[in-house]
Amino acid sequence: MTTKYLLSDERIPRHWYNIIPDLPTAPAPVLHPGTHQPVKPEDLAPLFPLALIEQEMSLQREVPIPEEVRAALARWRPSPLFRAHALEKALGTRSHIYYKYEGVSPAGSHKPNTAVAQAYYNAKAGVRRLATETGAGQWGSSIAFAGQLFGLAVTVYMVKVSYEQKPYRRSLMRTWGAEVFASPSEQTNTGRGILAKDPGSNGSLGIAISEAVEDAATHEDTKYALGSVLNHVCMHQTVIGLEAQEQMKLAGEYPDVVIGCHGGGSNFAGIAFPFARDKMHGKPVRLLAAEPTSCPTLTRGVYAFDYGDTAKMSPVVKMHTLGHDFMPPGIHAGGLRYHGASPLVSQLLHAGLMEAVAFPQRACFEAAVLFARTEGILPAPESSHAIKAALEEARKADEEGRERVILFNLSGHGHFDLGAYDQYLAGRLEDYEYPREAIERSMAGLPKVDIA
Amino acid sequence: MTTKYLLSDERIPRHWYNIIPDLPTAPAPVLHPGTHQPVKPEDLAPLFPLALIEQEMSLQREVPIPEEVRAALARWRPSPLFRAHALEKALGTRSHIYYKYEGVSPAGSHKPNTAVAQAYYNAKAGVRRLATETGAGQWGSSIAFAGQLFGLAVTVYMVKVSYEQKPYRRSLMRTWGAEVFASPSEQTNTGRGILAKDPGSNGSLGIAISEAVEDAATHEDTKYALGSVLNHVCMHQTVIGLEAQEQMKLAGEYPDVVIGCHGGGSNFAGIAFPFARDKMHGKPVRLLAAEPTSCPTLTRGVYAFDYGDTAKMSPVVKMHTLGHDFMPPGIHAGGLRYHGASPLVSQLLHAGLMEAVAFPQRACFEAAVLFARTEGILPAPESSHAIKAALEEARKADEEGRERVILFNLSGHGHFDLGAYDQYLAGRLEDYEYPREAIERSMAGLPKVDIA
Repeated sequence: MTTKYLLSDERIPRHWYNIIPDLPTAPAPVLHPGTHQPVKPEDLAPLFPLALIEQEMSLQREVPIPEEVRAALARWRPSPLFRAHALEKALGTRSHIYYKYEGVSPAGSHKPNTAVAQAYYNAKAGVRRLATETGAGQWGSSIAFAGQLFGLAVTVYMVKVSYEQKPYRRSLMRTWGAEVFASPSEQTNTGRGILAKDPGSNGSLGIAISEAVEDAATHEDTKYALGSVLNHVCMHQTVIGLEAQEQMKLAGEYPDVVIGCHGGGSNFAGIAFPFARDKMHGKPVRLLAAEPTSCPTLTRGVYAFDYGDTAKMSPVVKMHTLGHDFMPPGIHAGGLRYHGASPLVSQLLHAGLMEAVAFPQRACFEAAVLFARTEGILPAPESSHAIKAALEEARKADEEGRERVILFNLSGHGHFDLGAYDQYLAGRLEDYEYPREAIERSMAGLPKVDIA
Repeated sequence: MTTKYLLSDERIPRHWYNIIPDLPTAPAPVLHPGTHQPVKPEDLAPLFPLALIEQEMSLQREVPIPEEVRAALARWRPSPLFRAHALEKALGTRSHIYYKYEGVSPAGSHKPNTAVAQAYYNAKAGVRRLATETGAGQWGSSIAFAGQLFGLAVTVYMVKVSYEQKPYRRSLMRTWGAEVFASPSEQTNTGRGILAKDPGSNGSLGIAISEAVEDAATHEDTKYALGSVLNHVCMHQTVIGLEAQEQMKLAGEYPDVVIGCHGGGSNFAGIAFPFARDKMHGKPVRLLAAEPTSCPTLTRGVYAFDYGDTAKMSPVVKMHTLGHDFMPPGIHAGGLRYHGASPLVSQLLHAGLMEAVAFPQRACFEAAVLFARTEGILPAPESSHAIKAALEEARKADEEGRERVILFNLSGHGHFDLGAYDQYLAGRLEDYEYPREAIERSMAGLPKVDIA
């Protein structure tokens, strides 16, 4: 039977781990999207409160977590860590498989870890409202929840095709009191401009980001919130790995490999960065990111300066990228459909401190169903990539006649993704070829930047 | 901020609490549906394994929980108990509101507490397959999950209208490996007979029960499983109240009132029976069941012998009932749409040891939205009745200038009920009048039974 490793509330971390001072080289500068010159903190002030801008650039290794944020996290943290005995038995593997489970949060994924921190710092800075974008709704619902906790109004620009096809996450955001607009919307110049040209536009994450940024930049009392990619977002997620380190001690083991699925990077950073610190201090731990074959940012992208969004309104950062106008196929793991990657994760990959692997979606759903039938938890389609990677690690270890200790992060539950399971079980789920041509075309449009 | 009271895995109860020996009078006999004579244990043998039949009739106050069942429960138990500071603040109440949260189970409600016990005893008795019915799918998904854990095949007869309108819970059951048929089905004589007369039949819980019972009775390797009403089911749920008693000690308080929503009775029994024991030993605790106005079994029903199902195939039991052919309006709290009640809960009510109250669904959704916005958890529509009752208790206490300690069971999350929230938020949710005529008509059909 499955074993559960719990920590008491007092063991919620008191510091976030900031990986920047431990990296072999300093991060590349962040460039202004218009001038391609390094941005200064004050350039970011219309979008973020000072405390978050400071965290974005901080060189402090351990950043204290305010007590109010710890109290908010205590609603669901520390999250459990499980030894997957039932899954191991079904596989017949000699390896030991552990998973950290972030689906216990109110919004059902790891996203609220940073949402409550962002809401706290904004509320403390006197901000009245947060504007953000969301695709399928994981991030939008997390910030709606967190905004409620700290008394902030929340406006979500939700990609129109998801707004119409996924009404349930929209309802969840509204239940938590958020204002939700289908993007492109009539609320912003960007939205109105697009609707004037194309009234039937389905929207895109790029457009929704542009709308949220414009909303924040044009309203004194409003700031912008982003759910992944940025340094401070990755740092807020390190509570996952820090807790997992304590829990692995309770289990009396140390992982040979630490696995997280990878979209923008915050989930992978959350589980992996604290172990990366160990690795940089000599521990022989492997760090492995799992991504979709159809959006292979880490395995097939280049390490280059690129825009964070399609509309070229966001800063230019050095990261693994498939090109800012690459539009990934419509896989069900909506949270992994991003052309870029966190600059910090990209740097770790470039430095050879981690590995990445890509899987097609049917193989991931197959792994997810096996996981549900053995461990009992229904995984989010995003998380299924980490499960698939863990199964592959166990299989390879068995083939080599070795025993491996495998830890992965189960970043969320799939309660809002049963339509995808339905399609998988009915044999109607498609795999997508590696979209070589679309990626090559997109990569040709990378900005020319003169900074090393 | 909300405070959480957790117990370690070792504190999962080692015994279930069986209320029967503590009740002021012995339970009324259970009657054969054909002869109206008391059933003997052997009459139940085609449907249930011996261990569960013994539990159904046990006079042992504390029934040991097998270690295998405790290990299965440990996947999500002990469940957390919270002090609802944020909700209290929003209400401005002097009262202290606590809630036990059962939505942390893999299927998202309290139902797996008995599902794993039933699956364990069936597997131990050499049963290969379980047959059961489900309405909206809460019970069906719980038994699908539990069957997987203990290596049992599971067949679910799902009321056709739900099968078609709620595909997601169907997918959840299939993901957990269950076979799911729309009921009426071609699998049973009952189903075929109904389809012959009415090929477009939408089905009903009564028909689905009949199909599952027939399936079990006509297959040597198959038994039947029921998710509520029965004594052993109520007993399995007492882990909720037993844990809550320990957690209230941690909080340093004892409840003035203990609240659970009520459909068939297992959820209410789970939170309330351990406190009923205290009450019968002199503690001045009130026990309060909350039910829908549209299906007011406890507040408007009679205490009489009646059939458990519409088709009159199940035993006749003495219970609070609205009549076995009463068909409640289509409220979203599908788990509360049952004409009868657990005989044990009915006996408690008849003995004046508990109270019951009824609420219309819009008021319950209003309470649920307030709860989601303060406590962060999205409640199941069933659980929203308990929330509404807790709010009313707090309001009345404030009016009386008193401070009350209120404990309720949040029996599940509403992740599969966002369509209902959508309707509520859009102002499209209907309330139903008290269905007086339908109830009176149905009550006229109660069986005439000559046993006191």
